Amino acid sequence: MSVYEARAQRAQAAMAQRGIDWLFVSHSTDLLYLIGFTKQQSERLALFMLPRTGRPKMVVPGFETSVFDKYATFFDLVGWEETENPVDHVVRLVGGSGQTIAIGDQLHAIFLLRIQQALAGASYVPGLEILARLRMVKTADEIANLRAAAQGADRSYEALLGQPLLKMTELDVIRFLHAELLKNGHQAVGNGIVGAGPNGASPHHKTSERRLERGEPVVVDFGGSLNGYRSDITRTFQLGETPREFKTIYEITQQAQQLAFEAVKPGVTAETIDQVARDHITRNGYGDYFLHRTGHGIGLDGHESPYIVKNDRTVLEPGMTFSIEPGIYLKGKYGVRIEDIVVVTENGAERLNQAPRDLRVI
Amino acid sequence: MSVYEARAQRAQAAMAQRGIDWLFVSHSTDLLYLIGFTKQQSERLALFMLPRTGRPKMVVPGFETSVFDKYATFFDLVGWEETENPVDHVVRLVGGSGQTIAIGDQLHAIFLLRIQQALAGASYVPGLEILARLRMVKTADEIANLRAAAQGADRSYEALLGQPLLKMTELDVIRFLHAELLKNGHQAVGNGIVGAGPNGASPHHKTSERRLERGEPVVVDFGGSLNGYRSDITRTFQLGETPREFKTIYEITQQAQQLAFEAVKPGVTAETIDQVARDHITRNGYGDYFLHRTGHGIGLDGHESPYIVKNDRTVLEPGMTFSIEPGIYLKGKYGVRIEDIVVVTENGAERLNQAPRDLRVI
Repeated sequence: MSVYEARAQRAQAAMAQRGIDWLFVSHSTDLLYLIGFTKQQSERLALFMLPRTGRPKMVVPGFETSVFDKYATFFDLVGWEETENPVDHVVRLVGGSGQTIAIGDQLHAIFLLRIQQALAGASYVPGLEILARLRMVKTADEIANLRAAAQGADRSYEALLGQPLLKMTELDVIRFLHAELLKNGHQAVGNGIVGAGPNGASPHHKTSERRLERGEPVVVDFGGSLNGYRSDITRTFQLGETPREFKTIYEITQQAQQLAFEAVKPGVTAETIDQVARDHITRNGYGDYFLHRTGHGIGLDGHESPYIVKNDRTVLEPGMTFSIEPGIYLKGKYGVRIEDIVVVTENGAERLNQAPRDLRVI
Repeated sequence: MSVYEARAQRAQAAMAQRGIDWLFVSHSTDLLYLIGFTKQQSERLALFMLPRTGRPKMVVPGFETSVFDKYATFFDLVGWEETENPVDHVVRLVGGSGQTIAIGDQLHAIFLLRIQQALAGASYVPGLEILARLRMVKTADEIANLRAAAQGADRSYEALLGQPLLKMTELDVIRFLHAELLKNGHQAVGNGIVGAGPNGASPHHKTSERRLERGEPVVVDFGGSLNGYRSDITRTFQLGETPREFKTIYEITQQAQQLAFEAVKPGVTAETIDQVARDHITRNGYGDYFLHRTGHGIGLDGHESPYIVKNDRTVLEPGMTFSIEPGIYLKGKYGVRIEDIVVVTENGAERLNQAPRDLRVI
């Protein structure tokens, strides 16, 4: 049995447990996880339909069936013609009303609305509960890919520090890092955030033409994907003289990141890890400046379950992978964020990123 | 008034006409069209909420408000904290039940399901009717961007034909074309399809390591975006000797493409253009081998309304832009597709792509 067929069977077991009759997934990382292939969703519906028992179906544009043939070892392809309504096939395959249908998170709303209209008697629930649970715990192969991706990101960051950084623009920096990721085993790169000086105080700053100036801290947050698995690392460095308060918030952030890392072990909840980082920053007077959650799961998606945030009570298990990335942001001045990807082990955690975390003054 | 505020007002007028109370749009080209900015949708809800009358709101992650500040000239930002449920803000802003809410096509299903659960008394309809109608007719500025993108694609194709093509892999070809697009004004590239020999018979072939061999036709279909506007061109060329039937289907496809182009003018329906191309191919005995619609609208999205397909009765107007791309696919042998982007003019149509369409034997 292929890894994909086994995943579908585990999803079916979870569906049976929760009384879900069908799981519908379109192009997305959920589909990549379930059948080993995906591409961008388009206006043409492609829908993998997993029943609670029995053989899955996949409704695809008729002229694309040859693209799916090699993946369709454990499910049947149903092609629809350009002048047909693909939802008619979905209705026929469901073959009854009053069923409970779980919907993959990223299905475009236009398709959900059309399915809801055609199958008005059904109940619709998020597919998250089925798929996020399955995807959260990684196999050894998946962890090997995440480790290779993290190592590629580490090397890319080290290469950056060897460049003449002064007067480079933020966009120059991200372009350099993306080229390095591609040299270091990645097949694709993400968006990336480079925030120089006051721009570093905006956690999701839009990387700009601003130049890196002497005396300013710089936040770099970047990553991509290697064999489908994502890297994501943040480091903050300093060009030239260090403002005193920057050094202070850097140390607090680094300690918070270390304490959170040390708190990770099986049996602890995701929100506890957030609390550990947040408590340390709050005790040191910067709680109001730590503007976001402490981290997010990572795998085929850059952000996935579990989330390291208050109210996420996921109990950590070996094989779960997520970021630990506390930060302190002083508006108008600068920011600090330090992020590593970690994997939960039998009795603690391992960092997949090893790029130095101590403050580097360039 | 900014171009974006004017668009929002036109959307509101369309909403009033159709009895729609709210339009909800998340990160997507719809948002880019409405506010001038977008990025990838994530697990954190960002929702532009356009009421039928009055000032729009946008619910965004609290720590991202500074990213949106410069766009929020005609709408109010509502930030949500990491420990809040953003849908609570949506419910509060809607402030009543029984309303009709139009949903942007690409909103992730997880958000629609959560909104539907929280606002169970509302009716939900596709946002397509409002936004696709508005976006279909391009302004002079938009057409200038589409023309520049098409010209960049033309030049990239011409550059390809100057390369030593024999034994290049399909992936080599697409990488070369993508690099050329970036040299020719594009900021981003799409996926692209290169189908050598029998792979050309699969319209959505997944570009592979297969090498280009003497005596084989090659289909190349590629594009990207320039200032947000998309290019999309397909050409088919021949390496070395030409099989007789390939020459035949090439000529039929080229004639069909020309006839369809000549049929474009204001007042004609989208499906008529499809019929013209299809009739010509059918009359010549290859109707069963023309596997897809004749074309698709293009603008901020690579595929958007109108669709050049049976049952799309959109009446063409000056400023509409779409592809004309008939094809003939002989399984196990090869395929042909010829695609240009055209714009509807006052009394006909103009091709934005000018790369030669006559069969090139390399």
